[in-house]
Amino acid sequence: MEKYRFTYEDIHRTARDIARRVREGGFEPDLIVAIGSGGFIPARIIRTFLGKPILAVGIAYYDANDKPTDTPRKVQWIEEAERTLAGKRILLVDEVDDSRVTLEYCVRELLRHEPAEVAVAVLHNKDKEKRGALPQDVVRYIAGRTIPDAWIVYPWDAEDIDEHDRLAAGNPRIE
Amino acid sequence: MEKYRFTYEDIHRTARDIARRVREGGFEPDLIVAIGSGGFIPARIIRTFLGKPILAVGIAYYDANDKPTDTPRKVQWIEEAERTLAGKRILLVDEVDDSRVTLEYCVRELLRHEPAEVAVAVLHNKDKEKRGALPQDVVRYIAGRTIPDAWIVYPWDAEDIDEHDRLAAGNPRIE
Repeated sequence: MEKYRFTYEDIHRTARDIARRVREGGFEPDLIVAIGSGGFIPARIIRTFLGKPILAVGIAYYDANDKPTDTPRKVQWIEEAERTLAGKRILLVDEVDDSRVTLEYCVRELLRHEPAEVAVAVLHNKDKEKRGALPQDVVRYIAGRTIPDAWIVYPWDAEDIDEHDRLAAGNPRIE
Repeated sequence: MEKYRFTYEDIHRTARDIARRVREGGFEPDLIVAIGSGGFIPARIIRTFLGKPILAVGIAYYDANDKPTDTPRKVQWIEEAERTLAGKRILLVDEVDDSRVTLEYCVRELLRHEPAEVAVAVLHNKDKEKRGALPQDVVRYIAGRTIPDAWIVYPWDAEDIDEHDRLAAGNPRIE
């Protein structure tokens, strides 16, 4: 399977582009919700351009006995903040839309608190069949880039960032 | 006032160095607590090297009426997780130790849940008089780099990341 390596600078530019599209689309979020831990870095960069606070949620795919599961489980949620979600415009951020299961789960959980709107933004959407589906309430979905169903290597996962940057120069071309 | 600009690659290498020092110091955290939003990016990189889950906390210096205050206020905490903090070894992560007030506040809040230990790690410690003080229970404090009391520009705050990287090449020398 092909590997796509993105540099931090790639990620920064993609996050800035997402913020621009959020604004140009007329969406003014009240807050950003980052899905941890992959959404932390894109959310933090998007915050620079949108200037809104970030709340974090943690989702895991293992059960209480550390066994892998197919269904997401909350490891962190935003209780104090939940009562403030009602009527708010939320921008939900993650790094990648792969199976869409995590995004669907998080959107459904957020919608229970009757926000004014939940918009979704990801750095990368993998062009593939999705197991999850976004509820119809989600009318804004922004993927920084859409890429083939390949193995993505993010810079924050690099053991050696200089080697990662060198290898990223040889990425397969994204049409 | 002098400005220090750090590139993402600088940050990545500093975070890796912090993780190495955590391990070499014999500390094996059960979880990382990131202070949002500045701690999100360093915590996520440190996670690559330590392999532990991240919980996020949000601290703000404004009151319910959006007026600035001198004292930190929780905007997000880790309720579901709190009952699991007891007996745990926690690595608390932020980007910078400036006045030390936020770190002190977060450490004190975490200690109320009787963890086994709270260690503190920051990318940068500013060499200056501190308004806050870490409780004596904190025996491990790791600053990736100690720098003069200058204005730090982090890459995630850059409007233009390419210009930021160019300007970072002209940083004042850190002894």
